Amino acid sequence: MSNDLPLTKEMILDAAEQVLRRFGPDKTSVVDIAKVLQVSHGTVYRHYPSKAALREAVTERWLVGCISAPLAEIVHDEKGSAAERLYLWLSTLRKSKRDYFMKDAEMFAMYAAETQDSVEIVTAHVNHLIQQIAAIVEQGILAKEFKPGQPEVIARAIFLATSRFHHPAHAKQWLSEGEEEDFRAVWELLLRGIT
Amino acid sequence: MSNDLPLTKEMILDAAEQVLRRFGPDKTSVVDIAKVLQVSHGTVYRHYPSKAALREAVTERWLVGCISAPLAEIVHDEKGSAAERLYLWLSTLRKSKRDYFMKDAEMFAMYAAETQDSVEIVTAHVNHLIQQIAAIVEQGILAKEFKPGQPEVIARAIFLATSRFHHPAHAKQWLSEGEEEDFRAVWELLLRGIT
Repeated sequence: MSNDLPLTKEMILDAAEQVLRRFGPDKTSVVDIAKVLQVSHGTVYRHYPSKAALREAVTERWLVGCISAPLAEIVHDEKGSAAERLYLWLSTLRKSKRDYFMKDAEMFAMYAAETQDSVEIVTAHVNHLIQQIAAIVEQGILAKEFKPGQPEVIARAIFLATSRFHHPAHAKQWLSEGEEEDFRAVWELLLRGIT
Repeated sequence: MSNDLPLTKEMILDAAEQVLRRFGPDKTSVVDIAKVLQVSHGTVYRHYPSKAALREAVTERWLVGCISAPLAEIVHDEKGSAAERLYLWLSTLRKSKRDYFMKDAEMFAMYAAETQDSVEIVTAHVNHLIQQIAAIVEQGILAKEFKPGQPEVIARAIFLATSRFHHPAHAKQWLSEGEEEDFRAVWELLLRGIT
């Protein structure tokens, strides 16, 4: 990459992600990222004031692009009942998390660390996911498939009640025997609660 | 303490707990524990083959004495409906965990570490708690207060769906604003699923 091109935030995040994957969050420095971009570290700092801010921005981009954007498609797809879409939504979230935990360990570890440290981006991400569930729940209530209720409250309860299956603190358990059966049991209990 | 008394497992665990609290799991050695008991470390090893085994035994005793035994009383108490007892059971579990997290940080940290490392004692503890929930669910089904179903499956689903409120990986979130409201929302959803 040459320093003749105007430096965009996207270019900085691409370089940061590449370096973070290679060295891990602890060993990555802004100087390393600047080197990849062939710019001074001051130039990077003009866009992101700290390494923490860069790490947050990379995690946030990953959360949106890899986790919430694919789920939005399920919300907007009009096929199937609300229950079917809700099940597909939860299963897709679980699958994404499990796949990244197994195949993209660096990004997953960074995301898991951010859920501990950086409350803001994770809260925004969670609220965004809850709004997606709420949209499905609302469709279900309007279609009289689900019992009446406040979609946002029900959606938040569904998200929290399935934490065991998508919160990164439980990642090790996702690979355990009986995990699928456990998810089915929780899903059926929740479904009985909303239909 | 004198070494004239016959050394019981209970005495070793008392000493181990005392030393673990003082130095933390990493800095505690079997020699430290033996010193408190005024015996040789070989004597301790005759009862517990390793420091890990001692730590496990201390955690296990704490889980039974401080977490599951008080909950058993709620299961066997005949007062109130099954729903009331289930709510009390879950609230008491949450309160115990939160209290220990805040006031007995050393034991709580050890327990949280064991949930990662020592699958066996934690699985036994979780299964024991699920059996307690199953007993309440069964009473509810027999009294026709709850829908028919398999008490053990429903109990496991209830336990897993409330992980966010009692699994030690979520301890930091227990003190957050809105936690009580979140628990109520999940509880109401689960209750609608079983009644």
